[in-house]
Amino acid sequence: MSEDLQSLMQNTGQRARQAQRRALALEPGRKNDALRQMAAFLRRDADDLQRANRKDLRNAEQAGRDEAFIDRLRLDEKRIEAMAQGLEEIAALPDPVGEITDLKMRPSGIQVGHMRMPLGVIAMIYESRPNVTADAAGLCVKSGNAVILRGGSESLNSNMAIAERLRAALGKSGLPLDLVQYVHTADREAVGALIRMDTFVDVVIPRGGKGLLARIRDEATVPVIMHLDGNCHVYVDQDADRQKALQVVVNAKTQRLGTCNTAESLLIHRDRVGDLLLPIASALQERGIEIRACPEALPLIPGAVAATDEDYSTEYLAAILSLKIVDSLDAAIEHINTYSSQHTESIITENYSHARRFLREVDSSSVMVNASTRFADGFEYGLGAEIGISTNRLHVRGPVGLEGLTLQKWIVLGDGHIRS
Amino acid sequence: MSEDLQSLMQNTGQRARQAQRRALALEPGRKNDALRQMAAFLRRDADDLQRANRKDLRNAEQAGRDEAFIDRLRLDEKRIEAMAQGLEEIAALPDPVGEITDLKMRPSGIQVGHMRMPLGVIAMIYESRPNVTADAAGLCVKSGNAVILRGGSESLNSNMAIAERLRAALGKSGLPLDLVQYVHTADREAVGALIRMDTFVDVVIPRGGKGLLARIRDEATVPVIMHLDGNCHVYVDQDADRQKALQVVVNAKTQRLGTCNTAESLLIHRDRVGDLLLPIASALQERGIEIRACPEALPLIPGAVAATDEDYSTEYLAAILSLKIVDSLDAAIEHINTYSSQHTESIITENYSHARRFLREVDSSSVMVNASTRFADGFEYGLGAEIGISTNRLHVRGPVGLEGLTLQKWIVLGDGHIRS
Repeated sequence: MSEDLQSLMQNTGQRARQAQRRALALEPGRKNDALRQMAAFLRRDADDLQRANRKDLRNAEQAGRDEAFIDRLRLDEKRIEAMAQGLEEIAALPDPVGEITDLKMRPSGIQVGHMRMPLGVIAMIYESRPNVTADAAGLCVKSGNAVILRGGSESLNSNMAIAERLRAALGKSGLPLDLVQYVHTADREAVGALIRMDTFVDVVIPRGGKGLLARIRDEATVPVIMHLDGNCHVYVDQDADRQKALQVVVNAKTQRLGTCNTAESLLIHRDRVGDLLLPIASALQERGIEIRACPEALPLIPGAVAATDEDYSTEYLAAILSLKIVDSLDAAIEHINTYSSQHTESIITENYSHARRFLREVDSSSVMVNASTRFADGFEYGLGAEIGISTNRLHVRGPVGLEGLTLQKWIVLGDGHIRS
Repeated sequence: MSEDLQSLMQNTGQRARQAQRRALALEPGRKNDALRQMAAFLRRDADDLQRANRKDLRNAEQAGRDEAFIDRLRLDEKRIEAMAQGLEEIAALPDPVGEITDLKMRPSGIQVGHMRMPLGVIAMIYESRPNVTADAAGLCVKSGNAVILRGGSESLNSNMAIAERLRAALGKSGLPLDLVQYVHTADREAVGALIRMDTFVDVVIPRGGKGLLARIRDEATVPVIMHLDGNCHVYVDQDADRQKALQVVVNAKTQRLGTCNTAESLLIHRDRVGDLLLPIASALQERGIEIRACPEALPLIPGAVAATDEDYSTEYLAAILSLKIVDSLDAAIEHINTYSSQHTESIITENYSHARRFLREVDSSSVMVNASTRFADGFEYGLGAEIGISTNRLHVRGPVGLEGLTLQKWIVLGDGHIRS
């Protein structure tokens, strides 16, 4: 890494740390004013934002990017309004910082409890959609953190234009500008510096393709809130309700194909092969889903193809579903804990004990009974907003909202108490 | 690293993972039986444990270790009984696993909440005191985790003898033996393998000297619950009660010198220099504490020496205290957030607003009002047991008990609900 880049990133980190320290004392009202000001500035400068965005769109076209890519990149009036509304919604959420819980009197006479605090400095590294710039900045400011944003080069002009308005809004509200910083340099090594800058960065949140995530997992020394694959399962139990099984499987697989909470694998109990295998398979095939089946199910489903072991580990993000007949609840849990990416799994059953065991013994971020995996989402869970879906085991697991961007410290209230 | 060692560690990790999966289904009563059985086996085999320990003591003597070192290493009957009682106390604690909280009805009709689960496989890497072998294993088994133990070579014989009894107790109780494994090899590279074995190890908990911690911080790819320095502060505010200030400062500095929650630095408001500086300094000096003072305080305290900037960053773990006069609460908070190791800080004040601001704006694991920093401890906080004191920002901060060894996953209860 060049010395210039190193010192640029150090400087960015230092300024973020200073801004974050100053933000520890901020009242909720002042942060909310700033968030509403951000929304106002994005609306006011919508034309400038679109002008900046057009540069990115032109570059993408010249680089021969496909229509889906270009669509994700596009900032039209509707999307700018959605960003502004998102910021206003974040302003309206309860402030997580300073919340005191579990303040209990101890035998020694001291009172001990928790107080919720910002994590500190967050490095947000993302690709493609420019709205992430506003969403992430809004969530970080609301939770009292400073954020260093680093978007993909494909949306550099859009991101810079958005970040500039966010900073102007912070300034107008009297908050430290450096609560939001955007890394302008196109040098890929800037990411390398961010994810190893332990002194100034407290956590890295990456959102993007598998390449970006793998690089960050391998190279980061700063803790990462990781968002890995969603190889989600639905298990149709022996005691499943027929109609619920049908509708949940179809919804979990087909409501949207490319999301991480889409079901990629179906397990079905042997006793329900007779009445449920074909109806489910046909309903999926009618919606264009290819079925990759285990050797036992294969001859029973016209048009199915044989599943390999690799299929069971695969997040397709496509119109494909792997399918396996299992002998028991135990076999289903065993299969899931072996092949799943620990994102989201659902059991369809009317059996109380099976539901209770599945909830307890499946070791994934979200475990469901009689509900579509598509519900695994910060808004559906009531977080009010979402910065990603964590597949970490430590700190935060599943959808990450404002609370996931905070920590709990201990507070102790005494009256001259000493330890004996 | 040799291939043999690599495959030995892989095998250890694989067996831990399998045992941990099986433990997801364990009822609290069965884990508690096993913990009480562990205690019984340690008591029954106390003679064998002491025999093994004598080998370690002889080696330490031959290596010319000092008396303090040898004392820490010693396993006498009283210490073996304390280990056994510790395990019984862990058995008596509430089981954290399976706890369901915040189960709320959402507008869509699904119910969403949290369920507490084991972290998974924990690698515990520690030095010196053999009782950690039993303490750590007990806490990990209680919280449903598998643990891979790796103690220092100085206590290898003692640790192996303890671990053998713990495993025998697991076997007798019908639990997977591999919930507790001890790494027998003296090869230092075994630690290197453990802290990079992301597939099989979910978290590393080191306890030991700065050398061990620095190595793990630099080399680990597995998340670490870090236990770094305790450079703890007491700030005597403008509105401090005189008697409380005296007793808390003396207790925080002198009750024990070598613990991480001992105060290492005293800040005193300029307005209290007149009536409090000398009484506090004399009380400390009478107890053998050397005072390293700022230029302003230096001429006012007979026998004090000049503090350097490095003093303010130092965890002495010795009979030394750094001291600085500050102009305001703001200056005190600024100094602490700059120099502290974010372990534990206390303000002495009768001023409501100053107390409130200090609690909020000091960015440390434990923040106190009118209480000795020595209270920062899992037992004093009511955790029932403690595996260490975390200086992490993510996951768990401050004293780590059973809850710190667990995660919260999401659970969703529906009735055939699908997303529209």
